[in-house]
Amino acid sequence: MSFSNLKLILVRPRDPNNIGAAARAMKNFGLTELAVVAPFAPTWNEAVSAVNAEDVLTQAQVMGTLAEAVADCTLVIGTADQTRLAGKHPVYTPRDLVAEFAATNHRLALVFGSEKHGLTNDDLAHCHRTMSIPTAPDCPSMNLGQAVAICCYELTREQPTTAVIPNEFAAVGEIEAGLQMLLDVLREAEFLSSGNESSMTNKLRQRLLNCHLSSKDVALLRGALRQIQWRFENK
Amino acid sequence: MSFSNLKLILVRPRDPNNIGAAARAMKNFGLTELAVVAPFAPTWNEAVSAVNAEDVLTQAQVMGTLAEAVADCTLVIGTADQTRLAGKHPVYTPRDLVAEFAATNHRLALVFGSEKHGLTNDDLAHCHRTMSIPTAPDCPSMNLGQAVAICCYELTREQPTTAVIPNEFAAVGEIEAGLQMLLDVLREAEFLSSGNESSMTNKLRQRLLNCHLSSKDVALLRGALRQIQWRFENK
Repeated sequence: MSFSNLKLILVRPRDPNNIGAAARAMKNFGLTELAVVAPFAPTWNEAVSAVNAEDVLTQAQVMGTLAEAVADCTLVIGTADQTRLAGKHPVYTPRDLVAEFAATNHRLALVFGSEKHGLTNDDLAHCHRTMSIPTAPDCPSMNLGQAVAICCYELTREQPTTAVIPNEFAAVGEIEAGLQMLLDVLREAEFLSSGNESSMTNKLRQRLLNCHLSSKDVALLRGALRQIQWRFENK
Repeated sequence: MSFSNLKLILVRPRDPNNIGAAARAMKNFGLTELAVVAPFAPTWNEAVSAVNAEDVLTQAQVMGTLAEAVADCTLVIGTADQTRLAGKHPVYTPRDLVAEFAATNHRLALVFGSEKHGLTNDDLAHCHRTMSIPTAPDCPSMNLGQAVAICCYELTREQPTTAVIPNEFAAVGEIEAGLQMLLDVLREAEFLSSGNESSMTNKLRQRLLNCHLSSKDVALLRGALRQIQWRFENK
């Protein structure tokens, strides 16, 4: 399944803000192909002529029927509230869909119904499968723009990558030099005593080693300690 | 990481539709805890008094500062466009975050900036890490309500359950109290000056937040600082 093979279809959308939001989300995730079925003309014109309309909108296909809109696709996925579909259809989650079809070369259509009524049974009859975003049972119905955003996000994810944390870790010797300066200060401040110095030294060393310090961090620590020493000696 | 331990924070939101959409998405995914920092009063009142306002909104905490809003959390995640952050911070995706923290018992705050400017550098200094939804380079900036919806969706997906890692992380408010004592000492030692105090404060806050401190560690730090203060005053 590749992004260039994914067509998003809005059936009878009613709210120009939602149409705009759906187009925006598509652009955010690099999707470009939108079709609109039987839009309410004033709504559609308002959405397309908005000053900030995305090119996704101005280039959208406008179709009379869902059958026409999906004619060039090989897999059609209808979306609906999970409550509405319970027991009637096999319901996929977005993640199921990605898992099952990632390695195929389907030309996929993802179909969203109107804000008020969703897809009709006739619409769903044009779909191979039905997909539902798993939502809370006491508040299952999502805003159209947000539902489109989640589907675009999920369908365009790559395999999980681990975050790269840029960090030049300080060498242990650097940390030890910082620790020795810290111990001098704490001795001078009588935080360390002959009774606790040995155990406290180990405790502080352990904590510093586990702070993921960079060389710059150690330099900062040493600068601050040097200044505290100066204050001890000069006032 | 459990849903009941997840607080969503909107900083200076400007658009009542976005506030309502964020609250709606939270309800869709079973999240209930919302805090709002320094909202524009007319906007906020309009959002809360809307006929279809979610209870998430009417029960939201309204705070003056981000520091107050995150004080009871142990892990604070700021959100931003990936383009804005490139090269400056380690940037997590929502999925990275879930993978890394699924097995911890953090009290997580997820912070979103205003629609126009996002989070400021001062705001980000209060965050342990920064997260960005991976978007297309030519259209990186997402609508606030849609970004919130995607994060709520991703963070509440079922995760493979693994053993909970026991760790008593210090709350951000404890760390902040330690930071303020540290700043007092560094001011007294003339390590801080009017010229560098603001940037140094943010730098030190960031470093402390990322040291994985426990409550005991913070108590140790405060004890040492108290003793240094004593030495400043008494010799």
